[in-house]
Amino acid sequence: MDTKNANAELRNLPIGVFDSGVGGLTVAREIFRNLPNEKIIYFGDTARVPYGNKSKETIIRYSRQISKFLLSQNVKAIVIACNTASALALNELKEEVDVPVIGVVEPGARAAAAATKNGRIGVIGTEGTINSGLYTEFIKKIRPDCEIFGQPCPLFVSLVEEGMIDDEVTITMIHRYLDKMIEENNIDALILGCTHYPLLRTIIAREIGDGITLVNPAYETAQALKGLLSHRGLESSTPCTLADHSFFVSDGAMKFQQFASSVLELDIQNTKLKILE
Amino acid sequence: MDTKNANAELRNLPIGVFDSGVGGLTVAREIFRNLPNEKIIYFGDTARVPYGNKSKETIIRYSRQISKFLLSQNVKAIVIACNTASALALNELKEEVDVPVIGVVEPGARAAAAATKNGRIGVIGTEGTINSGLYTEFIKKIRPDCEIFGQPCPLFVSLVEEGMIDDEVTITMIHRYLDKMIEENNIDALILGCTHYPLLRTIIAREIGDGITLVNPAYETAQALKGLLSHRGLESSTPCTLADHSFFVSDGAMKFQQFASSVLELDIQNTKLKILE
Repeated sequence: MDTKNANAELRNLPIGVFDSGVGGLTVAREIFRNLPNEKIIYFGDTARVPYGNKSKETIIRYSRQISKFLLSQNVKAIVIACNTASALALNELKEEVDVPVIGVVEPGARAAAAATKNGRIGVIGTEGTINSGLYTEFIKKIRPDCEIFGQPCPLFVSLVEEGMIDDEVTITMIHRYLDKMIEENNIDALILGCTHYPLLRTIIAREIGDGITLVNPAYETAQALKGLLSHRGLESSTPCTLADHSFFVSDGAMKFQQFASSVLELDIQNTKLKILE
Repeated sequence: MDTKNANAELRNLPIGVFDSGVGGLTVAREIFRNLPNEKIIYFGDTARVPYGNKSKETIIRYSRQISKFLLSQNVKAIVIACNTASALALNELKEEVDVPVIGVVEPGARAAAAATKNGRIGVIGTEGTINSGLYTEFIKKIRPDCEIFGQPCPLFVSLVEEGMIDDEVTITMIHRYLDKMIEENNIDALILGCTHYPLLRTIIAREIGDGITLVNPAYETAQALKGLLSHRGLESSTPCTLADHSFFVSDGAMKFQQFASSVLELDIQNTKLKILE
C-alpha cells in the first residue's frame, strides 16, 4: 500500500469520544455539527458514573481502560469529553496512547482567555475538576494576567440527570453556588467546566444576568479537534449521518438512548453494552 | 479439631457488611449498638457509587465481586447493607455463597407490616429499589391485606452526600416527593428504603408531621442478624471495640473516614483501599 492509500485509510477511521456517562454527548453534538465528515465511537461509562467526586487514581484507571477499548476499535484520535477525566487523566493518556488525545479543559481555557475583557474568569465544575486547578494553569499559560475563581457545583450533575432544568430547586442552587463568587470577584466570563452544564446554560444565563460570557468547552473542543485533524492531515472527506456513529455504554443502553433523544434531541439507535474491567 | 473448637473458631469470625458507599454505615452502626460482640468487615464500593440508578445485571456483578472479597476475608455471614443491592442481588448471592446472606429489604418489610395499623404503607428509595417491587412482595407475603405505595427519591442520596440535611432545598424535595403520595394514599407507615435516608429521618419526620411511623430497615436488619446468628449458634461472646472492625473502600479512603466521623459520629481509622474488578 502506498502512502496516499495509507493516509486515505487512516482519514476514514473514527474518532473515539468518551465520558463518564451522557454528559459527553454535548461534545459529540458539537462534533456532529462542526465536523460533519467525522464518524465517532462514543463510550459512556454509565456503570461507574459519576466521575466528579472520585480520586485521580481511579479516574486514570477508568480512562486507561476506556482508551484501550477505543484503540481496539481503531480510532484515529481520542477526545476526552469529560472535564474531570480531562483534568485528571489527560497527561497520562497522552504519554501512553499512540494516537492524538485532546481533552476539553485546554480548549475551554483558551476560549475563556479570549472572552474575558477584565481578566477575571469564573470556572464551575465538579470537585475533581476544580480541585485539580487545571483550568487556572492553562489560562495562566495563555494570559498570565488573568485571575481565575473556581467553584465546585456538585449537585448540578444530579439535577441535570433528573431532568430538573428550569426548576425552582436548580435555580436556588445556581444562586447558592454563583452569587457570592460573581459579586465578590467581578468576573466577566464563566466556564461551564462540566459536560452536563451546557444543558443548564439557558437557565444559568437568565439567572446571573447579562455582562458575563458563558464559555462552553464542548464547542471549543470540536474546533480544537478540527484544527488537530487538519494539521495532521487526518480529516475525513466523506459526509456521514447519525447512523454511521457507534455508541457504547457500560450499563443501561436503553436509558442512555432515552436521555440522548429527550435531552439532547439526538435520535441515537443501537447503543451497545460494553463491560470494562 | 473437635466440633466444639470448630464452632468456637467460627463464632469469632467477622461479619461482612457491604454497601455502594457510606450509606451502609447506618447499618454498621446498628450492628455495633445491638451486637456489641460482633466484629465486622465493611466494604464500601465508593469507586462505583451510586448503585440506585444502575441496572440489575450490573448490581449483581458488583455484589458478586464484593462477596468474593468478603469471603476471602473469612466472614461467617454477609449483610447486604444497601437497599438497591438487597433488592436486585440477594437471591443470586444466597444461591451462590456458602455463608448465610441477609439483606435490608426483608427485615424492613417485616417491621413495616408490624407498624402499620390501616395496612397502607409507603416506601421511598432509589429507582432500582422501588422498581424492583421487592418491598411490596415481602410485605404481601406477611400481610396480604396491605397496600404499598412506592416513590423513588433519586435526589436524596446526593443531598445527603453533600451534607445538605436541614436545608431548604432538601425540604422542598421532601415535599415534592412525599406530599402527593401521603395525601392520596392515607399511609400510616413509611419505609426509609435506602441506607442514606436515616440521615434525613429527623427532617422527614418534622416535615411530614405526626401520624406516620418511619421504619428504618437498618435497625431491623441488625435485629434480624442477631436472630440469624443465634439460630445458627454463630454468636461471638467476645466484646469488641471500633478498633476491631475493618473498613475497605474501592476509592477515597480519607473521604470515607471524614464522612463517617462527621455525619455518623463514628471515629473510624485505617480505612484500606481495595480495588475490585
